[in-house]
Amino acid sequence: MIKGQITGVGVGPGDPDLITLKAMKAIQKADIIAYPAPDNGVSFARQIIEKNIPLHSGQSEYKITIPMRIERFPAQEIYDQAANDLAAQMEEGKNIVVLCEGDPFFYGSFMYLHERLYKKFRSTIIPGVSSVMALASVTQSPLCERNELLTIIPGPLDEDLMTAQLQEEKTAYVIMKVGRHIEKIKRCLIATNRLDKAIYVERASLPNQKILPLSAVDEGNAPYFSIIQVRI
Amino acid sequence: MIKGQITGVGVGPGDPDLITLKAMKAIQKADIIAYPAPDNGVSFARQIIEKNIPLHSGQSEYKITIPMRIERFPAQEIYDQAANDLAAQMEEGKNIVVLCEGDPFFYGSFMYLHERLYKKFRSTIIPGVSSVMALASVTQSPLCERNELLTIIPGPLDEDLMTAQLQEEKTAYVIMKVGRHIEKIKRCLIATNRLDKAIYVERASLPNQKILPLSAVDEGNAPYFSIIQVRI
Repeated sequence: MIKGQITGVGVGPGDPDLITLKAMKAIQKADIIAYPAPDNGVSFARQIIEKNIPLHSGQSEYKITIPMRIERFPAQEIYDQAANDLAAQMEEGKNIVVLCEGDPFFYGSFMYLHERLYKKFRSTIIPGVSSVMALASVTQSPLCERNELLTIIPGPLDEDLMTAQLQEEKTAYVIMKVGRHIEKIKRCLIATNRLDKAIYVERASLPNQKILPLSAVDEGNAPYFSIIQVRI
Repeated sequence: MIKGQITGVGVGPGDPDLITLKAMKAIQKADIIAYPAPDNGVSFARQIIEKNIPLHSGQSEYKITIPMRIERFPAQEIYDQAANDLAAQMEEGKNIVVLCEGDPFFYGSFMYLHERLYKKFRSTIIPGVSSVMALASVTQSPLCERNELLTIIPGPLDEDLMTAQLQEEKTAYVIMKVGRHIEKIKRCLIATNRLDKAIYVERASLPNQKILPLSAVDEGNAPYFSIIQVRI
């Protein structure tokens, strides 16, 4: 029997129409649609495909439940279990897609499945529109131009390291996974005289998106998926 | 009369199926399809949409001709002229899309039109799959994970600055616009002990893509659109 394969599919930043043709075709052809979901809510990746890709009766779903308290670095046992379950399906010849918010290999969790499965099964990636690109499209401000550098900083980074990073004059920045780190990030931007160049965006590309100068944001806690753009 | 509008549309890294639904719809609805093209060859962005989006008789094309010798930083007069031409069309109520390789606001030239037109006309951006994401999908190696940083470096950057940049231990890198800078880039990676972590990719996502360890590349000149991924 021919073994099945697994594909990490980028479904884009949120707007259902920011999915690629390639992703749509792969999802429509798959036997199993897998996706991460928090234990206390719905899966964002699954929601994104709802409008444009109705699943058909020959398809089944597989939820990778991620306990919220460890959402940032999920316990490896969760991926051991998921990889085992999906491997068993592939042994039966089933083809699997794993829905990934944004792009699968840009801070994505698909890598945890890929690294467990690629030696035994065909594992491929369909790149997607990242929230970084969605960010610039809604702020209407280029991420970087000409010979500028662009550094992506994860919000949880240590305060001293983040401040040191933000010193580079020729570098533009995007700070991801802002969430509860927003006050620390503000301090780092103030320390490096960049607060006035920082734009805060929540849910870029969705109808309820929010765009504000970071200096005007007074919440102590931002949603996990909020992003900050810092221009040169 | 209602004025027309202009939209910078990301058409993705090369694979025609890596275009988004949103981009397709915008292109299909536009009156004028504009795109940059070198004076000595065909437009890559125009080629990307060829397969999936046949233009119809009500649509016209507008080529922004970029002399090759100045492709990297085109003379501003070229965009003055293009902005004037497109503004005249928008005054007549025509809607325009500008095709952009990858993403419009990530080292894209759409910004030169946007900055000239957005005060008078509605100018919007449809984000696209960047060649950076395509790169990781073909090397099958994540761009960054967990709390890693990712810095995008333009190939033309000065050698000392590039070497200094590559020192950061917690940072992964992507080096864009490699072209004739490949030997300099190799020297910088050797100086920072990172050559063995560097993967060279040409034409990611196209049938003629090429993936090699950078250490195995012995060309003195790479194509302009080649990219290097440097993992931590």
